[in-house]
Amino acid sequence: MTNLTLLTDFYELTMANGYFEHGLMNREACFDMFFRSVPDGGGFAIMAGVEQMIDYLQNLRFDAADIDYLRGKNRFSEAFLAYLRDFQFTCDVWAIPEGTPIFPGEPIVTVRGPIVQAQFIETMILLTINHQSLIATKANRIVRAAQGRAVMEFGSRRAQGYDGAVLGARAAYIGGCGSSANTMADRDYGVPAVGTMAHSWVMMFDSEYEAFRAYAETYPEACTLLIDTYSVLQSGLPNAIRTFREVLGPRGCRPRGVRIDSGDITYLSQRIREALDREGFPDCKITASNALDEYIIKDLLTQGAQIDNFGVGERLITSRSEPVFGGVYKLSAIERDGMLEPRLKVSENIGKITTPAFKTVWRLYERATGKAIADVITLFDETIDERAPYLLFDPEHTWKRKLVGDFTARRLPVQLFDRGRCVYESPSIREIQKTCAREVGTLWDEVLRFENPHAYYVDLSKPLWDIKQDLLKEYASGQAGE
Amino acid sequence: MTNLTLLTDFYELTMANGYFEHGLMNREACFDMFFRSVPDGGGFAIMAGVEQMIDYLQNLRFDAADIDYLRGKNRFSEAFLAYLRDFQFTCDVWAIPEGTPIFPGEPIVTVRGPIVQAQFIETMILLTINHQSLIATKANRIVRAAQGRAVMEFGSRRAQGYDGAVLGARAAYIGGCGSSANTMADRDYGVPAVGTMAHSWVMMFDSEYEAFRAYAETYPEACTLLIDTYSVLQSGLPNAIRTFREVLGPRGCRPRGVRIDSGDITYLSQRIREALDREGFPDCKITASNALDEYIIKDLLTQGAQIDNFGVGERLITSRSEPVFGGVYKLSAIERDGMLEPRLKVSENIGKITTPAFKTVWRLYERATGKAIADVITLFDETIDERAPYLLFDPEHTWKRKLVGDFTARRLPVQLFDRGRCVYESPSIREIQKTCAREVGTLWDEVLRFENPHAYYVDLSKPLWDIKQDLLKEYASGQAGE
Repeated sequence: MTNLTLLTDFYELTMANGYFEHGLMNREACFDMFFRSVPDGGGFAIMAGVEQMIDYLQNLRFDAADIDYLRGKNRFSEAFLAYLRDFQFTCDVWAIPEGTPIFPGEPIVTVRGPIVQAQFIETMILLTINHQSLIATKANRIVRAAQGRAVMEFGSRRAQGYDGAVLGARAAYIGGCGSSANTMADRDYGVPAVGTMAHSWVMMFDSEYEAFRAYAETYPEACTLLIDTYSVLQSGLPNAIRTFREVLGPRGCRPRGVRIDSGDITYLSQRIREALDREGFPDCKITASNALDEYIIKDLLTQGAQIDNFGVGERLITSRSEPVFGGVYKLSAIERDGMLEPRLKVSENIGKITTPAFKTVWRLYERATGKAIADVITLFDETIDERAPYLLFDPEHTWKRKLVGDFTARRLPVQLFDRGRCVYESPSIREIQKTCAREVGTLWDEVLRFENPHAYYVDLSKPLWDIKQDLLKEYASGQAGE
Repeated sequence: MTNLTLLTDFYELTMANGYFEHGLMNREACFDMFFRSVPDGGGFAIMAGVEQMIDYLQNLRFDAADIDYLRGKNRFSEAFLAYLRDFQFTCDVWAIPEGTPIFPGEPIVTVRGPIVQAQFIETMILLTINHQSLIATKANRIVRAAQGRAVMEFGSRRAQGYDGAVLGARAAYIGGCGSSANTMADRDYGVPAVGTMAHSWVMMFDSEYEAFRAYAETYPEACTLLIDTYSVLQSGLPNAIRTFREVLGPRGCRPRGVRIDSGDITYLSQRIREALDREGFPDCKITASNALDEYIIKDLLTQGAQIDNFGVGERLITSRSEPVFGGVYKLSAIERDGMLEPRLKVSENIGKITTPAFKTVWRLYERATGKAIADVITLFDETIDERAPYLLFDPEHTWKRKLVGDFTARRLPVQLFDRGRCVYESPSIREIQKTCAREVGTLWDEVLRFENPHAYYVDLSKPLWDIKQDLLKEYASGQAGE
C-alpha cells in the first residue's frame, strides 16, 4: 500500500515544526471532528470511513525519502526532521462506528494527544470521513427512495479519482447498495461486483440478436441483456425474448433480466413488463440505469415504472447534487498546568463558533419503541443515568425543555486507539451495512423524510453548556483576543 | 504503486470472457472517448489525466491473486484466465495532450486494437480523464476569474478520496493554480506546496499576539498570519501589525501576508489594506479563503475587494457546482474481412447518437491572429491542406457553411502507444500548465466568457459526414437492429 503519511496540508507541517521549535510539541490537546449541515437538506448523515482512517493512523511513518523531500523545502529544522524520522503515534482516538446516523454539531471523531500529532492528522481524518460519509449518506437516500428494490452502484467511470471509485463503492454498500460494478471494490472490500454487457458488445456483432445469442450462450445462468442499443420496443425487447426462448429455453435456464439505459424509463419499463409477462417471463427482472438519483427514482415509482433494480452512476459516486461533506476538525481543549483547559473558536460567522472541552456524545432511545429521542453532547467523563428522568434543553433557546423518562442511553463513540495502540477491530462490511439499516430504523419518519425533515435534537449537557457560556462571556469581556 | 488493473467495471470482464469464448478476442476495434457538454455551461474544457492514463496502461497485468479472485466469481473459463495471466497490451492509443482546450463531440482519446483489450481499459480511461479534466477545467475558470491574482488549491480535506486530493491538485495546477496545500502533490507531482497556520495554532497560545509572535519567530521570512480567529479588525489585524513591527522589524524581514477565512471579505479586505498601507506594510499581501469559486471571486473583485491571493477549497477540488465530467467511451469501428468497418450507436436519446469510424481531430487557427477558428473531426487518414481554402459546414444544419482561408491546421491527438509500446513522454507539469495558458489564449473572448459562451465549431469533414449519414439511413431502413 502507498504510504499516505504526507497526504496532509502543508500547514500541518509548518505548525508541527513551529510547536517543536517552541517546545510545545508534547502539550496535550483535544480535537473534535464534526460537521455543520447535512447534505441535500437531509435529516441525518451516515458515518463512514473509520476503517480507512484507522489504516492511515496505524501506518503513520516518515521514510527517508519523505525526510529528504521535507528538508528540501527549507522550512524545517534538523531537530524536527529527526523527530519525524522517529515518529511514534501515541494519541487516543474515538469515533462513532461506521453505519451510524450522525447529526450536525456532535463530535464524530475525537482525538487526544500531543498537539504536534493530534494536529498533523487533521487532513486525512477529514478527507477520509468526509468522503465516505458523503457517499454513504447519499446511497442511503437513494436506497430509501427505491423502497426495497435493489440499488447497484455503477459510477466508477465518473468518480473523482481511483479511491473515489473504490472507497466510494464501499461507502455506497454501507449506505445500503447491494452491489457495485467496481471489481476492485469486490476484491479488496467485499462489495459484490456485478456486470453484464455494454452497448459495444451489441455493436460488435452483425445484429442485435446475434449479440444476445452469443451472450446467452456464454452466461445462460446469468443472462441479463442490454436492450436499448437500437430501439427498445422494436428490436431490443423482441430480440431478448427470442434469445430467452431459443438459447435459454433448451438449456433449462430462466432469464435473469433486461436493462435499459436511455429513453423514457417509466413508459418503456411498463411496455417491457407487459411483454415479458405475456410471453411467459414474469420472473425476468427489469433494470434501469441512466442519470438516476433519489429524486428521479421517487418520481419513477410514483409514475408506476416497473423497475426491479436501479443502477445508479455519477449522481451517487460524486453525490452530484451536493458533492461536499463539510466536516471540520477543531481544537476543543489544551493542557495547562497538567489539566485540560477548554478552548473555544469564536468567528466572524456565528455558525462557526465551536463547542469547547474534551467531550463525547450520547444517544437517548425511547425504551418502549426503540426510537431515537435526542443526542446529548456531554463532557467526556459525564454519564447519563438511565434510571432517572433526564432534562433536555435547547442550547440556543434554553426555555425549550423536555423531561425524558423511560429511555436507554448509549455512548456513541468507541475507542479506536489507546495511546497510539489500536484497540478496535472494524466489523465486516456486511455487519456495517446491517448496523446502518438497523440504526436508520430507530429514526422517526419525520427525521427520515427528504423534504424539510424534522431537525433531530442535538443538545448539550448542563455542565458543557455552562463551560461554553463562560468562555463566550470571557471572550465578550474582551480578554480572549488580547 | 498499487496495481490498478482490476479497477474496472465487472462488465468489462464478462464481455472480455464472452469475446474470448466466441473467438472474437483479437478482432480489431476502435473506440473513442469524447464528452457531450462542458461543465458549468462553459465554452470549453481542459484536457488532463493523460500521464496517469499512460501509467495505468503501462502497468496492466493480472497477478496470481487477481486470477484467483476472478476464478472465485465462477463466471470465467480457465482458458480465459490463462489468457489474462499472460496478458500483453498491444493497442494503439492516441490522446489530445494535457492542457489543451477540448470541445464536446470530438475524440479526445482514441484506442485501436484487439476488442478484448480495447474494451477492457474503458473504465480507467474514463475515470482518469474525466476526473482530472473536470478539475483542470474548473481551476481554469477560477484562475481566469481571479484576473492574474494567485489562486492556491486548498481542498484536500473535502476531496472525494486520496487521489481526488492529490491528482486533483495536479489537475488544478494544470488549469492554472499556482500552488496547493497538498504536500503529497508536491512530493509526487511537483505542485508547489504552501501553508502556514490553522486557527488551532492561534488557540493553542494564551493570546493571539503570543501565537503570532511564536509563528513569526519560527518563520520570519515566510510570515503569513491568519487573523480571523477572534475578531479581524479588533484583534487579528492590530496583533499582526504589532508582530510585524516587533518580531520581523528587528530581524530586517518584511511580512509575507495576512489571511482571512470568514466574515465579509470585501469589507474586511478593504479595511485591512488601508491599515497595512497606513502602517507601512503596503507590500504585505492579503489572502482570502472561505467557500470561494469563480462566481464569488468575480463578485468580490467587482465590489473592489483588496485580495492578492485566493485560497480555493471544496468548490474547486470537487468542482462542486458541477462535479461530473461526462466523458464516454464508444465503439466507432470494428474489423470485418480485414478492414475497419465504421459502427454507429443509435439511441432512444438523439443526443446519444455517436459519430462512427476510426478518426482524428484537427484545430484550424487563423494565421493572422493565431486564434482558433474551428475543430474538424476527420477520418484518421485524411489530411487538411493549409494551402487551399477549407469548407466548414455545420453537421446538423448543413446550409451553414464557411470557407476558411489563410489558416494553419494542427492534428490535435498525439500517439501514446504503438502496438502496446509507449512512444510518448509526458511533458513536465510546468510545461503542461504553460500549454494550457497558451492554448486558452488562442480562444476568442466569446468562447472564454462564463455566461452563454459562443459555441465553438466542431465540424465533421465531408467524408466522415457522408459515412455517418449512410449509417443513419441504413439504420432507418430497418437493417441495423435486426
